[in-house]
Amino acid sequence: MIQSSKNQLVKKIKLLQQKKYRDKENMFIVEGIRFLSEIPTQYPIAFYAASDTFQNKNDISEYKKRAEVFVFSDEIFQMISETEHSQGILAVCQKQEAKQKLQLQKNGFYLLAEQIQDPGNLGTIIRTADACGVNGIFLSKGCVDLYNSKVLRSTMGSIFHLPIMQNVDLSECIEQMKQNQIAVLAAHLDAKEYPYTVNLKKGCAILIGNEGRGISQQISKKCTQLVKLPMIGQAESLNASVAAGVLLYEAVRQRI
Amino acid sequence: MIQSSKNQLVKKIKLLQQKKYRDKENMFIVEGIRFLSEIPTQYPIAFYAASDTFQNKNDISEYKKRAEVFVFSDEIFQMISETEHSQGILAVCQKQEAKQKLQLQKNGFYLLAEQIQDPGNLGTIIRTADACGVNGIFLSKGCVDLYNSKVLRSTMGSIFHLPIMQNVDLSECIEQMKQNQIAVLAAHLDAKEYPYTVNLKKGCAILIGNEGRGISQQISKKCTQLVKLPMIGQAESLNASVAAGVLLYEAVRQRI
Repeated sequence: MIQSSKNQLVKKIKLLQQKKYRDKENMFIVEGIRFLSEIPTQYPIAFYAASDTFQNKNDISEYKKRAEVFVFSDEIFQMISETEHSQGILAVCQKQEAKQKLQLQKNGFYLLAEQIQDPGNLGTIIRTADACGVNGIFLSKGCVDLYNSKVLRSTMGSIFHLPIMQNVDLSECIEQMKQNQIAVLAAHLDAKEYPYTVNLKKGCAILIGNEGRGISQQISKKCTQLVKLPMIGQAESLNASVAAGVLLYEAVRQRI
Repeated sequence: MIQSSKNQLVKKIKLLQQKKYRDKENMFIVEGIRFLSEIPTQYPIAFYAASDTFQNKNDISEYKKRAEVFVFSDEIFQMISETEHSQGILAVCQKQEAKQKLQLQKNGFYLLAEQIQDPGNLGTIIRTADACGVNGIFLSKGCVDLYNSKVLRSTMGSIFHLPIMQNVDLSECIEQMKQNQIAVLAAHLDAKEYPYTVNLKKGCAILIGNEGRGISQQISKKCTQLVKLPMIGQAESLNASVAAGVLLYEAVRQRI
């Protein structure tokens, strides 16, 4: 049992809480029983970390079949955990990013995000895109890191369900979409048309912009169409994950 | 300038960070320049609290016209502020809850929420309902307090834009809705019908349930209709504020 805060694994796990180190090591942390159960069978797990109490109260043989389980004193586990009331179990996973470029489907359905900053928003957008059956997600440079613990938690496991590309050059991505007859629709407060009158039955991609600034001018010029949602009351704008949800589901409504 | 943490106003503001005290005093705190600008002209403000730095860098004469401004040393202001990087200004407001029962409109559009727990979700739902032009919001007992600072922040000012009833007996509320020919639609994972085929052009109310448990059996039985959103991918459910947004906007789509 690991009882020292100076242990190499303790240091490693603590470092993996930082983006810089996750990028360097190509690893990330998944914490909690429910979330661990979402990791697909083939997904590479480097090792598990369990607290002493977790090991005593749970059957960890299933975990052991997949990867080595290191046990930490409860005190040390609390140090490496990022949740306030930890269940005492986490996994360190190898990133499995879509290394090659995603093959775009002619009638495919995609989500693009430009510089989404809030971890909860990004996680929720990914969860919703999964629910809507999108074929892939493209995140621009400047989005919050996909492997941030709050993003991961908010995805509710959807991180493992569909291809997600990070650090994407959106201009290039939109160009490729258009070459594949995929219309790129962007939510924009200055747009004139509602999405309800736009044909989303064919290949389409929904683009969501930054929470405060919306979509950059450079990118909005490249989109096939700008759309807005009706604003009936006095609210000036919508939360980014709500706007994404409404637009994605409008495409779903038209496509089913 | 108030420099002591034992000052009565310091104590009062700190106590107003708790629901119990907000209920007792019928007051709540609004913090930050942008949020303060959302307070309607007629809304009763008990007093303002400003930091020394804020007072020196800003013209506070407009604030003084509306209510007394108490100045606190920067150190003490940081104690009474609930935000990490405070701008140095807050207002203590009197609650202006719809005391009488809201007069239901025959073709009205309403939102009901049962035991929403997450402050961000409740605030976002209120903001979206405002954007959709709903005529009123009814929150059940057991919802997170409307005057919780995170709820208020997430509403982005919508708290001031439409009537919101708290601690509502939902059974009774649904009964009254039905008597006024307002159909109550509840999002429910076990439902068979999509909202797209339900007529939402007439009076209707959307009911959103608790994040984990959904809508209670007792309440779901009383609704006019249960609806579900298509779940195409592998996600098991939607975030509560996204589900609310998609359903509210489906009603907007049909009504415009």
